[in-house]
Amino acid sequence: MRMDEMIEKKRDGHALTESEIRFVISGYTAGDIPDYQMAALLMAIYFRGMNRAETVNLTMAMAESGEMLDLSDICDYAVDKHSSGGVGDKTSLVVLPLVASFGVPIAKMSGRGLGPTGGTLDKLESISGFDVNLSQAEFRRIAREIGIVIAGQSKSLAPADGKIYALRDVTGTVANESLIASSIMSKKLAAGASGIVLDVKLGRGAFMKTLEEARALATTMVQIGVDAGRDMVALLSDVNQPLGVAVGNALEVVEAVRTLRGEGPADFHQHCVEVAAHMLRLAGQGERWTALEEARAEADRVLKAGDAFEDFRRMVAAQGGDVSQIDDPRKLPQAKLSYKLHARESGCLAAIHADKIAWATLMLGAGRRTKDDLIDHPVGIEAHCNVGDAVAAGDLLMTIHANDETSLQAALAELDDAIEYSPCPVDPLPLFHGVIDGREL
Amino acid sequence: MRMDEMIEKKRDGHALTESEIRFVISGYTAGDIPDYQMAALLMAIYFRGMNRAETVNLTMAMAESGEMLDLSDICDYAVDKHSSGGVGDKTSLVVLPLVASFGVPIAKMSGRGLGPTGGTLDKLESISGFDVNLSQAEFRRIAREIGIVIAGQSKSLAPADGKIYALRDVTGTVANESLIASSIMSKKLAAGASGIVLDVKLGRGAFMKTLEEARALATTMVQIGVDAGRDMVALLSDVNQPLGVAVGNALEVVEAVRTLRGEGPADFHQHCVEVAAHMLRLAGQGERWTALEEARAEADRVLKAGDAFEDFRRMVAAQGGDVSQIDDPRKLPQAKLSYKLHARESGCLAAIHADKIAWATLMLGAGRRTKDDLIDHPVGIEAHCNVGDAVAAGDLLMTIHANDETSLQAALAELDDAIEYSPCPVDPLPLFHGVIDGREL
Repeated sequence: MRMDEMIEKKRDGHALTESEIRFVISGYTAGDIPDYQMAALLMAIYFRGMNRAETVNLTMAMAESGEMLDLSDICDYAVDKHSSGGVGDKTSLVVLPLVASFGVPIAKMSGRGLGPTGGTLDKLESISGFDVNLSQAEFRRIAREIGIVIAGQSKSLAPADGKIYALRDVTGTVANESLIASSIMSKKLAAGASGIVLDVKLGRGAFMKTLEEARALATTMVQIGVDAGRDMVALLSDVNQPLGVAVGNALEVVEAVRTLRGEGPADFHQHCVEVAAHMLRLAGQGERWTALEEARAEADRVLKAGDAFEDFRRMVAAQGGDVSQIDDPRKLPQAKLSYKLHARESGCLAAIHADKIAWATLMLGAGRRTKDDLIDHPVGIEAHCNVGDAVAAGDLLMTIHANDETSLQAALAELDDAIEYSPCPVDPLPLFHGVIDGREL
Repeated sequence: MRMDEMIEKKRDGHALTESEIRFVISGYTAGDIPDYQMAALLMAIYFRGMNRAETVNLTMAMAESGEMLDLSDICDYAVDKHSSGGVGDKTSLVVLPLVASFGVPIAKMSGRGLGPTGGTLDKLESISGFDVNLSQAEFRRIAREIGIVIAGQSKSLAPADGKIYALRDVTGTVANESLIASSIMSKKLAAGASGIVLDVKLGRGAFMKTLEEARALATTMVQIGVDAGRDMVALLSDVNQPLGVAVGNALEVVEAVRTLRGEGPADFHQHCVEVAAHMLRLAGQGERWTALEEARAEADRVLKAGDAFEDFRRMVAAQGGDVSQIDDPRKLPQAKLSYKLHARESGCLAAIHADKIAWATLMLGAGRRTKDDLIDHPVGIEAHCNVGDAVAAGDLLMTIHANDETSLQAALAELDDAIEYSPCPVDPLPLFHGVIDGREL
């Protein structure tokens, strides 16, 4: 096999076989195939696409390019979740302890990524001393002893994906469904879970703007997982407005703690219950949780009772975090300035632009534009309102937490037209737009 | 400007501006833009194409990436020719002395290229001592004093093209009309000619198999030249069967000498007259040669009279070649073995597969598969027949000149079905399929 032949085959619209895809991925990972040939192939894939079999084979080849985690010493059936990311998405901080509180072990590897508020790891690092850089041995020990652990993704997991993603980022080949889906799923498959719940976000505050795009990507990812022998569910979640109230790392930890104690915002509480219910159904495998309804009711009950907070607290302690900061969230780092944004007019809230809130949060310093940017943990925005709310002029809509006047002004400029008012009643936004169940594909 | 933005713009089907194309070419030539980004852009161009303005801008940017030859010290109006290459194409060896014999100075840079018999330089090197590696000063001196010189292309000519071509060769991005046309024309424009005749070959023995492909490429090249301010003509020439009789380096020099003495094969003689007539018309610029008819008649007369042989002879002498070898071509290197191939049946020749003859010639060692291959000058094939000829079983069709038995057998195997017979009369093939005149575009 020769790489130029693979490029020409895909360029001319033909499907690559499993052995051809393995030749490409192993050759590229080993450095035998140069970046320029891989870049040409990726652009050909961008134009020609990949069919279901090619996409699955690509994902498996990338997953198997490094270590395949074996979690069988921790549990018989590992369950994982993945979120495609959205404004205010602190779901993992609540859902993972909630699921763990049912005795389902959670051994989760998470990424950092770019964006307005970093990722789950950045949020957890708002807590003094919290260590996400665990050795394999520590990771497994905490999972076994405490029942829940969240750590940074091992570099030995799907190294082909890391190398290919870096190349796609600078060659205009990011926005292809098969490449996006295989990149996400290769890491999930390598991370050892048997059941995976995908929380695919869509709307103004997400990478995917439309239901069609989100459904297509979610379907592809579920297909990959099913073909690779995993139990799969994808939820299509709305983030046209921020999920919950808090956007910003420490602010989101505070909101997660509140939600784990049964005092979270209604929309975020319900979002977490739904994701957890699907994870519990998969983990039960038709035994303990015969119906999704039952899992949903149990998750709601436990979350309202505040019982899952103890699981979160034990994880923080096990990973070296300062437990007093989550017992009393006022001890978490605080921003120097806070600014209250009030309603300009009376009426119904017709839109709360999550994308503008994301940009404002990024300007405050809560996220990363490039991978070397440093996170400012306490800054961020609280959006105390939801689409459909009736407000009077002067009502509090948002609180902006900043560490300096310059970034505060930049954020305020970005927020200037983030809220739309309507004189007529407006329906609230749905939390979910649908579910894709792997058993039905 | 950023290269990833250029890639995305072309990927999404938009035209690149002149300054964007110059940014890409100068950045890539300087090494600021890496191969992998250029490879992604080339694949995007492969799928999206380039419009006329983009193609011209790309060509000019590549031409101006190095030295732009100024021939004004040699002549007021320099004329050049380019052939896209075909089996038995030794046209330059005859046409250039023929045009020079009219007092039109010829200062020609030529390439080597891959293929069954190398290029013009390889053919000339069949003559002992012939030196194609001339300094700029020698090149100009011979052009001025002798009126004709043929040398290897200076490495400082269009270096961007060399770098881009090498990348296209290994990334599946060769077969794009704009990229092919700009690659050829960038070197022609940098080589300083004001008028250019393109001899675009088509058929079994050429890179382009169909009239449509050849016409499209020729039109693009003529447009580039016209937009760059050059006088342009393209001929669409048939090489379904070999041009002339000889295929192979020394064999082609013998045939060129014979033709220059007025004793060449009729088809090749006429091909040379036509190319020369167009060059003479351009060089005359409407003064000396008011009509193509007149130029054609004059070229035919001079070639038949053998007057242009003296110009070829003076060039060979000036470039250090052994003149006795062209005075008596039997002194040129001879192959050890010769094998005569006879007609298997009686009938009319319906096809003489130039592509199979090309492969057979390559197997004899006359050409290059990779750029480091060495040329075996005396080997090759003489095809003594033309499509339409009536033959009797046992008539001589070809003579194969080989230097060893193994390569002879390999060539014979390739030639096994190179000839097709018909019981009915067959029309001869046309020499030309059309002309594209830059004044009409």
